[in-house]
Amino acid sequence: MYIDIGKALKEAAEDDAYSLAVLTGTGDYYCSGNDLSNFTNVKPDQIAQMASTARGVLEEFVNVFIDFPKPLISLVNGPAVGISVTTLGLCDAVYCSDRATFHTPFSALGQSPEACSSYLFPKFMGFAKANELLLFNRKITAAEAKERNLVSDVFPDDVFQIEAANRIQQYSKFPPQSMRLSKVLNRSPELKILKEVNREECKLLEERWQSKECMNALVAFFSRKS
Amino acid sequence: MYIDIGKALKEAAEDDAYSLAVLTGTGDYYCSGNDLSNFTNVKPDQIAQMASTARGVLEEFVNVFIDFPKPLISLVNGPAVGISVTTLGLCDAVYCSDRATFHTPFSALGQSPEACSSYLFPKFMGFAKANELLLFNRKITAAEAKERNLVSDVFPDDVFQIEAANRIQQYSKFPPQSMRLSKVLNRSPELKILKEVNREECKLLEERWQSKECMNALVAFFSRKS
Amino acid sequence: MYIDIGKALKEAAEDDAYSLAVLTGTGDYYCSGNDLSNFTNVKPDQIAQMASTARGVLEEFVNVFIDFPKPLISLVNGPAVGISVTTLGLCDAVYCSDRATFHTPFSALGQSPEACSSYLFPKFMGFAKANELLLFNRKITAAEAKERNLVSDVFPDDVFQIEAANRIQQYSKFPPQSMRLSKVLNRSPELKILKEVNREECKLLEERWQSKECMNALVAFFSRKS
Repeated sequence: MYIDIGKALKEAAEDDAYSLAVLTGTGDYYCSGNDLSNFTNVKPDQIAQMASTARGVLEEFVNVFIDFPKPLISLVNGPAVGISVTTLGLCDAVYCSDRATFHTPFSALGQSPEACSSYLFPKFMGFAKANELLLFNRKITAAEAKERNLVSDVFPDDVFQIEAANRIQQYSKFPPQSMRLSKVLNRSPELKILKEVNREECKLLEERWQSKECMNALVAFFSRKS
Repeated sequence: MYIDIGKALKEAAEDDAYSLAVLTGTGDYYCSGNDLSNFTNVKPDQIAQMASTARGVLEEFVNVFIDFPKPLISLVNGPAVGISVTTLGLCDAVYCSDRATFHTPFSALGQSPEACSSYLFPKFMGFAKANELLLFNRKITAAEAKERNLVSDVFPDDVFQIEAANRIQQYSKFPPQSMRLSKVLNRSPELKILKEVNREECKLLEERWQSKECMNALVAFFSRKS
Repeated sequence: MYIDIGKALKEAAEDDAYSLAVLTGTGDYYCSGNDLSNFTNVKPDQIAQMASTARGVLEEFVNVFIDFPKPLISLVNGPAVGISVTTLGLCDAVYCSDRATFHTPFSALGQSPEACSSYLFPKFMGFAKANELLLFNRKITAAEAKERNLVSDVFPDDVFQIEAANRIQQYSKFPPQSMRLSKVLNRSPELKILKEVNREECKLLEERWQSKECMNALVAFFSRKS
C-alpha cells in the first residue's frame, strides 16, 4: 500500500496533465489502516530489522504527502482507521460520506501517532480534542470529524459520490498554476517543521514496535479477533 | 479604498480618544473586493509597473491591520469578497449578519491569497477547510464562516445592527490599556511571521498579475459580466 | 490553591502508580478563579512585593501544567472563571456538564490573560473568537466552549459524572508508556514557546496588578459585590 500510493502520487506530481490528485477507497471502507499481521509474522530476532525497515517506508510515504505540490483531495467513502485518518491533515480538501468514521487506536495498540498528526491535530482542533483521538483512541463520526477540522464537508451516503465528483470537476477547471502556487505559499512556511515532526514520529514508532506494550497489545488484538 | 482605510486606521491607532476601532460596510455588501477593472484598463507595456505599484499598496495596507495596536472589530453587514474576507483573520472580533456570505475567488481569477490568509486560515481551520476557500474558491455562508473561526458570532439580519452596537458599546467601556496590552501580548509572538507572510503573498501576487492565467481569467470575467 | 494543586500534580507525575491525572471541582462551581481579595487586603507600600510574589507563584503553577508528563483530564462540573478556564488549553481532554460556563473577565478587572491562553486560544479558535474572550470578557456556554476547542465533549448535567467516569476508566487501561510518549511527542515542539509565553504573561500581570486601571477595577468590583 505505502509503496503503490507513494508511486502514484509521485507520478501525479510530475505529469502536467494532472492539475490535482484525488484519493479514495473502494468497497465499504475508506481504508482499514496498517496490516497489523506484518508485525506478528516476524521472528523475535528479526523485529529490530523489521522496525527499522518499516520506519524508513513510513517516513518516505508521509514525505510524499508533505511535499505533494498540487492540490490533494481525499474522498472518505466509509470508515477510516489509523494512517488513513492522520494523512487527512495533509490534504487540501476532504469530503466524506455520513457513513464514515474516524479511528486512531494508537495507544490501545501500544503505538504512537504518525503523519504529522502529533503536530497538525492539536493545531487544527486544540489539545483537548486532538489528544482525545491521539492518546485516548476515541472513534468519531463524520460530523465530529468536520467539527474537528479534519473534514471540509459531509454528504449523505446516497449522494456522496455524485456531490464529490461535481466538486472535483469544478475544481479541476481552475487555472492550475494559480492553485499550485497558492498551495506552495501556504505549505512552505510549514515544510521544515512537518519534515522534522515526521522524522520524530517515525523514530518513536520504531522504538514502540519493539516494546513489550506493543507486543502484548498485538497479541491481545489477534486473540480477540480469532 | 486601500489608502483611505489605511489612513483612518492609522488615525484611530494614534488618537487616545479611541479605545477600539470598528470596520463595517454601507449598503447591501460588506465589501465587494478589489476593483478588477484596475487590472484591465492598463496598456500592455504598463502592466509590470502597475503590478509593482499595486504590490506596494497592498503590502502596506495589510501591515496596518497586522500592526493595529488596539482592538479591531469587523461588522460584516452583507456579502464579503476577496480581501474583505481575508483581513477578517486579523480582527479581534467579527460579527456578521446571517445574510453575509464569504467568497475568495483567487484561483478562478488566476490570482493567489493575501492578508496573511495563506498562513492564518490553515491555522484557524486546518488545511482541508482553508484550502477549500483559498484554492477552490468555495463561497460559504455566515454559519460556515463561524464554524471556520473567521466569525465570532452571527445575528439574524433584522437585529444585526442593534446587537452589534450593544456589544461594541459594552466593550468600549473596558479599561483601554488593559485591552491594548492584552492584544499586544497575543499579537507580538506572531508579528515577525505575519510580516514575512504578507511580503511573500504580495510578491507572488505581483507575479500573478502579470501571468497569462490571470489575464485570461480577467478577460473571461468581464466578458461574462457584459 | 496554586501551591496545593501544583504539589498534587507533581506527585501524580512522579508516581508510576498513576497513568493519568484528573482535575475537577467540588460543589456547584468548577472553580471561581483567583481570590481577588488577595489584591485589596494589601497596604499601598506592599503592592510591588505582593505583585512580584504572585507572579512567581503563577509562573510556577502554569509550568506544572506545561510540563505535566502524563495525560491530564479536566472535568468541568459547573461554572469556570479565570485561570480555571485558561488552563483548559493545556489539558489532553476536557469534559463538561451542560451547566458549565466559561468566563475570563481579564479586561474588566484591568488585568491580562495567563496560562498561555494569549498563545493557545488564538491557535485553537482564531483571533476573532479568542479575543472576544480574552479582550472582551464574553462569558460562553458549554456548547460554545466545545465549538471553540476548549472542551472535548459536553454531557447533560444529570449524566455528566457517570459519563466522565466511564471514559476515564476506559482511558486508564491503555498502555501507560504509549500514552505518555505520545503526549511528549505532541507537547515537545511547543515546550519552548509555551515557557516563553508563560513568562511574558506573568511579567505583564505583575505590571497590571500595580496599575491604576486594575486598582480602580477591583474597587468597583468589591463595591458592586457589597
